[in-house]
Amino acid sequence: MRVRKRTGAEEMLAENPQYVVSEPEIFKGKWAERFGNDHPIHIEIGMGKGQFITGMAKAHPEINYIGIDMQVSVVSFALDKVLEQELPNVQLLHVDGSALTNYFAKGEVDQIYLNFSDPWPKTRHEKRRLTSKEFLAVDEVILKPNGEIHFKTDNRGLFEYSLASFSQYGMILKKVWLDLHASTYEGNVMTEYEQKFSAKGQPIYRVEAYFKTKEEK
Amino acid sequence: MRVRKRTGAEEMLAENPQYVVSEPEIFKGKWAERFGNDHPIHIEIGMGKGQFITGMAKAHPEINYIGIDMQVSVVSFALDKVLEQELPNVQLLHVDGSALTNYFAKGEVDQIYLNFSDPWPKTRHEKRRLTSKEFLAVDEVILKPNGEIHFKTDNRGLFEYSLASFSQYGMILKKVWLDLHASTYEGNVMTEYEQKFSAKGQPIYRVEAYFKTKEEK
Repeated sequence: MRVRKRTGAEEMLAENPQYVVSEPEIFKGKWAERFGNDHPIHIEIGMGKGQFITGMAKAHPEINYIGIDMQVSVVSFALDKVLEQELPNVQLLHVDGSALTNYFAKGEVDQIYLNFSDPWPKTRHEKRRLTSKEFLAVDEVILKPNGEIHFKTDNRGLFEYSLASFSQYGMILKKVWLDLHASTYEGNVMTEYEQKFSAKGQPIYRVEAYFKTKEEK
Repeated sequence: MRVRKRTGAEEMLAENPQYVVSEPEIFKGKWAERFGNDHPIHIEIGMGKGQFITGMAKAHPEINYIGIDMQVSVVSFALDKVLEQELPNVQLLHVDGSALTNYFAKGEVDQIYLNFSDPWPKTRHEKRRLTSKEFLAVDEVILKPNGEIHFKTDNRGLFEYSLASFSQYGMILKKVWLDLHASTYEGNVMTEYEQKFSAKGQPIYRVEAYFKTKEEK
C-alpha cells in the first residue's frame, strides 16, 4: 500500500515506543518477554493502515500481533488505531519484510498474514512478490514447524501465481476460498482495501497453507 | 454428465469395435499395440459427449486419446463424433473411472484430463469426486512418473476442494487459472458444457498438477 507522506509521522512513531519498536533486532528470540506473556505470535507483513491487525487484536486478545510495514507514514496510521483502542497485544515495526530473520528467531512466529500484497505483475519483478520462493524461504525460518501463511487478495494473477508458488516450494494448501465473501467463512476481518473494493463484485481469494516439517519432507 | 438413455446405443457400440473397446482389460499394458504406435497416451475420465476428446485428437494427431465414461448413451454420442471425423488416435471405453488399474498398467498413461466432473457437493459424497484422494491413488498408479492431471471446471466448490486435495495428496500445482477464458491460455478445446455455460459470465477454473516421483517425495 502506497500512501502520501504524512507530516510528523516519524516523530509520532518515536513518541510511542510502547507500541512502535524502533530497534526490533533487540527482541529477536525475546518477543514473549516484550509482550510479557507466551501467547502465540501472529505477524502481518505489509499491514497497511492497520485495520486488519487491530481488528484481529481486538477479537483475539489471547494472541500477540506484530504489524510490519516498510513505510513510516503507513505505520503511523496503524498507530492511530492502536492508540485509540489501547491494544496491549499489538506491536508495530517499520522494517523491510525481506529481512525478518533479523528480527525473529527460528520458529518464533506462529502464523503469518499477507493481505492484498503488491501484485508486482511484471515477470521481472517476481522476486518482489511476498509469495515468491525468496520470501517463503524467510517465512519458513521464522515460522514454527507446520506454521501457516494466511493470504488473501483480490488480484487474480497474484493468487494464481501464489497457489503454484506455495505448492512448488513444498507447502501444503490446507484450504482455498475463491470467493471469500460468498463463502461461509466466519470471523473475516476486512482490510481497508478489502472493504473498499469488495463492493465492486470482484471476488476475494484466500488460502491457508503450511510448511512441512523436516520429517514430512 | 447425465444424458437420457439413447435407443440402440449398446448395439451402436458393439458394431464399432475399432473405436469402442468392449474388453479393455485385454489391452492392459498393450495400448501401444492397440494404437499401432508408441505415441503418448492421454485419457479423459468422464468424457461426456466427446467434444473435448475429439477436438484434442484432431488438433494433436501425435497423441493417442482414450475417452472413458460409465454411461453407454454418453459413449455413443462421443462415438458419433469419432465416426464422423474418422479419428485413428481415439479409443472409447465404457467403464468405471475408479477401476482404471484393471485397464492400464503402471505408468502406461502420460496425462489425465478431468473436465467439469460431477461436483458431488455433499461432504458424505466426497469419495465420489474424481479429485478425491481415492481417485488420485488410482491415477498415480497408471500415470508415468511426474504424470500430470489437467482439470477444469466452473464449479467453485469443487475447484477449491480439488486444489487442496491435490496438494494434500502430495501433488505439485504447476499452474492455476482462475478465469481461463479471460487468460492468454492458447489451444483450449471446449467441452459441450463449457461452451454452453461460459457465456453466463461464470469463470472457468483450470489447474495442471503433477505427481511427485518416489525420489522427490
